[in-house]
Amino acid sequence: MFQTFDSEGDPSVGAPRVAALRDWMVANGLDAFVVPRSDEHQGEYVAARSERLKWLTGFSGSAGVAIVLAGRAVIFVDGRYQLQVRQQVDMNVFTVASLIDTPPAAWIQENLGKGLRIGFDPWLLTIGDVKALAASAEKIGSTLVPVPSNPIDQLWQDQPSPPLGRVEIHPAKFAGELAKQKLQRLAQAVAKDGATHVVLTDPSSIAWAFNIRGSDVPHTPLALGFAILAADGKHLLFMDKRKLPIEPEAYLTQLCDLRAPGDLEPALAALARGGARISLDPVLAAEKLRMIVVDNGGTVVEAPDPARIPRATKNRAEIDGSRAAHRRDGAAVTKFLCWLDRTDPDTLDEIATVTKLEECRRTTGEETQMPLRDVSFATISGAGPNGAMMHYKVSRGTNRRLARGELYLVDSGAQYQDGTTDITRTVPIGAPTEEMRERFTLVLKGMIGISTLRFPPGTRGMDIDAFARIALWRRGCDFAHGTGHGVGSYLSVHEGPQRIARTGTQTLLSGMMLSNEPGYYKEGHYGIRIENLILVTPEEPIEGGDIPMHAFETLTLVPIDRRLIKAELLSEAERGWLNAYHARVLAEIGPMVDGETLAWLEAATAEI
Amino acid sequence: MFQTFDSEGDPSVGAPRVAALRDWMVANGLDAFVVPRSDEHQGEYVAARSERLKWLTGFSGSAGVAIVLAGRAVIFVDGRYQLQVRQQVDMNVFTVASLIDTPPAAWIQENLGKGLRIGFDPWLLTIGDVKALAASAEKIGSTLVPVPSNPIDQLWQDQPSPPLGRVEIHPAKFAGELAKQKLQRLAQAVAKDGATHVVLTDPSSIAWAFNIRGSDVPHTPLALGFAILAADGKHLLFMDKRKLPIEPEAYLTQLCDLRAPGDLEPALAALARGGARISLDPVLAAEKLRMIVVDNGGTVVEAPDPARIPRATKNRAEIDGSRAAHRRDGAAVTKFLCWLDRTDPDTLDEIATVTKLEECRRTTGEETQMPLRDVSFATISGAGPNGAMMHYKVSRGTNRRLARGELYLVDSGAQYQDGTTDITRTVPIGAPTEEMRERFTLVLKGMIGISTLRFPPGTRGMDIDAFARIALWRRGCDFAHGTGHGVGSYLSVHEGPQRIARTGTQTLLSGMMLSNEPGYYKEGHYGIRIENLILVTPEEPIEGGDIPMHAFETLTLVPIDRRLIKAELLSEAERGWLNAYHARVLAEIGPMVDGETLAWLEAATAEI
Repeated sequence: MFQTFDSEGDPSVGAPRVAALRDWMVANGLDAFVVPRSDEHQGEYVAARSERLKWLTGFSGSAGVAIVLAGRAVIFVDGRYQLQVRQQVDMNVFTVASLIDTPPAAWIQENLGKGLRIGFDPWLLTIGDVKALAASAEKIGSTLVPVPSNPIDQLWQDQPSPPLGRVEIHPAKFAGELAKQKLQRLAQAVAKDGATHVVLTDPSSIAWAFNIRGSDVPHTPLALGFAILAADGKHLLFMDKRKLPIEPEAYLTQLCDLRAPGDLEPALAALARGGARISLDPVLAAEKLRMIVVDNGGTVVEAPDPARIPRATKNRAEIDGSRAAHRRDGAAVTKFLCWLDRTDPDTLDEIATVTKLEECRRTTGEETQMPLRDVSFATISGAGPNGAMMHYKVSRGTNRRLARGELYLVDSGAQYQDGTTDITRTVPIGAPTEEMRERFTLVLKGMIGISTLRFPPGTRGMDIDAFARIALWRRGCDFAHGTGHGVGSYLSVHEGPQRIARTGTQTLLSGMMLSNEPGYYKEGHYGIRIENLILVTPEEPIEGGDIPMHAFETLTLVPIDRRLIKAELLSEAERGWLNAYHARVLAEIGPMVDGETLAWLEAATAEI
Repeated sequence: MFQTFDSEGDPSVGAPRVAALRDWMVANGLDAFVVPRSDEHQGEYVAARSERLKWLTGFSGSAGVAIVLAGRAVIFVDGRYQLQVRQQVDMNVFTVASLIDTPPAAWIQENLGKGLRIGFDPWLLTIGDVKALAASAEKIGSTLVPVPSNPIDQLWQDQPSPPLGRVEIHPAKFAGELAKQKLQRLAQAVAKDGATHVVLTDPSSIAWAFNIRGSDVPHTPLALGFAILAADGKHLLFMDKRKLPIEPEAYLTQLCDLRAPGDLEPALAALARGGARISLDPVLAAEKLRMIVVDNGGTVVEAPDPARIPRATKNRAEIDGSRAAHRRDGAAVTKFLCWLDRTDPDTLDEIATVTKLEECRRTTGEETQMPLRDVSFATISGAGPNGAMMHYKVSRGTNRRLARGELYLVDSGAQYQDGTTDITRTVPIGAPTEEMRERFTLVLKGMIGISTLRFPPGTRGMDIDAFARIALWRRGCDFAHGTGHGVGSYLSVHEGPQRIARTGTQTLLSGMMLSNEPGYYKEGHYGIRIENLILVTPEEPIEGGDIPMHAFETLTLVPIDRRLIKAELLSEAERGWLNAYHARVLAEIGPMVDGETLAWLEAATAEI
C-alpha cells in the first residue's frame, strides 16, 4: 500500500509546542513567528522532516500558515480545510483565518499594532511572500525579521533527516524530448529574461528539465534539490549523491556539474560576487536565495520559472502516454466501481474501499505491464458527511462505514511512468434522495459545461471557471474551490501555472492538462464531486467562423453514475455529451475488463 | 445639436508636427517623448486644449498614446480603434501598436536599446504609468525623464485656453445623499487608509462628493479641478471661481475652502512639509502629484480613490432616477426606430439619423419636463461597413447613405439630470442575409446570457464576461472589446471600477450600473451590437438554495429587432427572456408614445 490510515493531526500537540516556540521567541527578541506549511521548494508534498506546521499545530492539510504571537496564535487555511482544521487543531490555542480572504499579509495589517518584530525563516517563504508581509508590517510600523535558523528544527527532538529517495532516468519515450534539448531551450529563456543564470527551486522543474524522477516526497516522483542553469550552458545541479545510482549519476554528469546540497549557498554567492544576474521566480524562490544574491553584490531578475510553461504544455509523447495511462486507470477504477456496486455496503468502510481501489490499480498495472508507481495523492474516500470535507483523508480515527441512503465520494489518482491520473466519482449507496440527485445533476451540468467549451487563443482559466458554476448559481448553490488544477506528466498531480479558477491568470495553451471537477458540499450531510482530466487541444477552424478555437479533449474514461442523474434537468446538448462520453468509455474500457465487469460497464454506460 | 460632424483626424498634421517635436527633443537632450491622450484628470473626455495626441497625430479616439523617437514614431490604440487609426493617422510617420498586447512599457522593453533619455510630462501620466515605464526603461538601461513643461503646449500656436464651463448644484433629490455626509464618509475612508489627506484628481469623484455638475468637457457634466480632502474635515477645492455662479459658490463655501487652480501645488507642498500622509490613487493620480509630495518630505499612501466605490454603488434615489431616465430615453429611441423603419432609406444617411435621434431625445425630454442636457457620447451611427468600426464617429467626410441589404448600428446615450443612458440597437435596412441573422442571434444569446445570470457575492466582472461570448465562440467568432462598462449617475457614461471584461477585477456590488453589449464585427461588411444597461440587484435567497444570489435588473427599454432573430437558435429560456423583456418594454413605453409609434411598438414587441 502506498497509503496509510494512521490518525493524523493530534490537537493536543498544539499547547505545549506553541508554549515552547513562545519561549524561543522571547529568548530571541521576537514578538511573532510565521510558520508556513511549505518547505524550501514550495511543493504540495514535503518530506517528513519539513512537516513543521503539522508538528506545531496538528494540522495535516497541504496548505496553511500559522502565526504565533505572545498572547494568541492563528492558523490560516483555505476553503478546502475549514472543517478539517477544526478537528485537527486545538481551538483553545489557535483561531482560524482564511488563507484566501485574509491571508497573513492582510491579517497582520488588520490585526497587529506597531513596534512588533515578526520572525520568519527565509528558506521557507518566497520572495513574493516576504514582499507582501514586509509591506504590511511596514504599514503598521512593525518589522519582519529573517532568522538564521529555524526554531522548529531546534525544538523538534525527533525531527527526521532529509530524504534520500532513489533517482531514476525518465526515459525519452515518455519524456518526448531529450534533456539536452530542454536545457538548451531553458538557457535561451534565461538569456531572454535578461539574466545570466536561473535558480530552479521547484523539483518539478528539475525533474522535467533533466528527465529524472525521484522519491523524496510522498506521491510525487520528485528528487529534492536545486539547480542553477546558466545562459552559457554551464549548469549546476545540487543534489545529494547518495540518491543517485551509478547510471543516473553518469547520465547527469553529461548534462551538468553535480554538486552537494550544501554547495548551493557558496556557489550562488560566488556567481553574485562575479556580477551575475540571477533570475528568481518570486512566487517559487525562497527569500533566502534573494538575500544571498543581493548580499553578495549580484542582481536579482524577477521572472517566472522558465520551465513552467514548457513543462505544462505536453508534447506528443506525453499526451499519448497520458491517454494510455487513462485507459489503464479507467479500467482499474471501473473494476473498483463494479466491485463496490456488487458488494454489500454493510461490509464496507472508507478504508476498505481505498484498499480495494489501490489493489485494482496495482493489479491492472501489473496485467498491462505498466506498474502502479504510487498513488498520485492520498485517496479522498468520503462516506456521507465525510464527503463534504473537500480534502478529507480517511484515518482509523475517522473511518466511517458505508451506509444506505448516503453518498460515497472517491477522489483518487495514480502515478504511472507514462502519466499521472486524477479522477473523482460520487456514487449512491442504496437509494439517493431527490435532493442528492438534483444537486448531482447540477454539478454534472457544470462539468459538461467545461467539457464542451470552445474558446479562442488567449483565454485564461479564470475566464471560463464560472461555466462550471452557473447551473449551481441558478439554484442558489456554489462550491468553495477552483474548478480545475493543472496536472503533470508523471509529476505533480497539482501542477501550475495552468488552472481553471478565479485565480487562473495563465492563458490556456495547447497541450496543457487540467482537471475539471466541480462539486457541491452539504456540510454534515454529503459531498458531490465529478472529476475528469481534460487536455487543451490545438486551436482548429470552425466552419463559417473567423477564429480557430481550442477545445478540451476528455482524458478520463470511467462511467458517471446514472442513478444520480435527473435526465430532465439536462439539455439535449448535455444529454448528447453524456451519451457520447459513455459510448466512448465502453468502446475504450470494455476490451480491457472481463465478463462480470464488462456487463456492469455496459449497464453503467447505457444511454440516458 | 450637442454633436458636430466635422471631419476629424487629418493625417497630414503628423509629419510637420512630429518634425517640430523632434527638433524640440534634440534641443532638450531627449531621445524619445511620450504623448498620451489623457489630461491631468485621466478622464475619457478632455478639453480642447488637452487634445495633444490629436494635435500631434490626427487620431481623435478616446484612448491612445504616442511615442516619438528620432527615427520612428509609434501610436498605441486598443482593439476598438485599429481601423480608425489607420484612416486618421499618417502611416508613413507612425506605426501602430496594440495598447493592450504591447502597451508602451512592454513596447519600450522589446523595441528600444540602452542609453536613451525618454521624456514625459508628469502631469499627464499616472503614478502607475510612470512606474511601469520606468521599470521597462531601467531593464534596457535607459532613463525616463519628467519634463518641466509640456512641449506640445509650446509648439501648439493656437492651443485653446482652459475651459470655464458653468457649475451647478446637483439637487439632493437626484443625488440621494447630502455632500456633507459624503465628505464625512470620505474623510473616514482616508483615515482608514492610513492617510491624513487624499487628492481627488478625478472630476467625477469631485462631482459626486460635492454634489456638483459642470460643463468643461463634452458629453460628461464635469467641472475640471482638484480637491484635497482631509481626515480632519478641512477640505480644499481647487477650481477657477469664474466657473461658479453665486449660488454654487456659496454652497461650496459651506463644504470646503475654495482655492484657485494654481494654489494646488503650493498647498500640497505645504501639507507635505508638515508631514502629511497623502493618499494618491496610482491608477488616477498624476505622477507630478507624487513628485510634489515626495520632494517636500511628505509620505505618499497609494490607495484607490475613496470615492469610486461609493459613487459606483448607486443609492435608491439614483436608481429610481435611472429607471425614470431609461423610460424617457426608451420612448425617445422607440420613436426614432419607428421613424427609421417608416422612412425611405434612400433618403437617409448616418448624419441624418444622428440628427433625428438627438431631436427625438430633445423633444421627449421637453414633453416630460426633464430636458436632454447632452448626449452622453458622440453617437456611433454606422451603416454597412462603418458599423464594423467599434467606435466609429460619423463626419461629413465618412458619412454613408443607408442602403438596402445592409445593417445599421446605432450606439447612443443621453445625459438627463436624473440619469445617464447608453443603448445600442442594430437594425436591418431592407432584407438581411442569413449570415447577418445568424450572427445577430449569437450576439443576442450572449446578451441574454448576461441578463439572466445569477451570481454569488464576490463575483467579479471578469468571472462572467465569457457568458456574453460562448455562443459566438461555438461558431468560431468573438468580439474584440469588453462586454460592459460601468455607467455613472448623471456623470460619465464610462465609469469605473466596475466592468464586465477580462480586466474586470472589481467585485460586482449591489447598486452598480453596467452596460451589457456584446457584438460581432465583420470588417468591411457590417457590425452588430446589442446593448442594454443593467443594474446589480441586492443578493436574494433562492428557494432551496444555500447562498443568496445577485441578479441583473435590465434598465434599458427598447425593442430588439425581431427581423434579425433566428428564433430556432434560441433555447426555450432565451426565448422566454426575450418575450418577457418585450412585454415589459410595451407595458412601460407604450403609454409614453402616440398612435403611430404605439402601433409600431406593438408589432416590434410581439411574441417570437
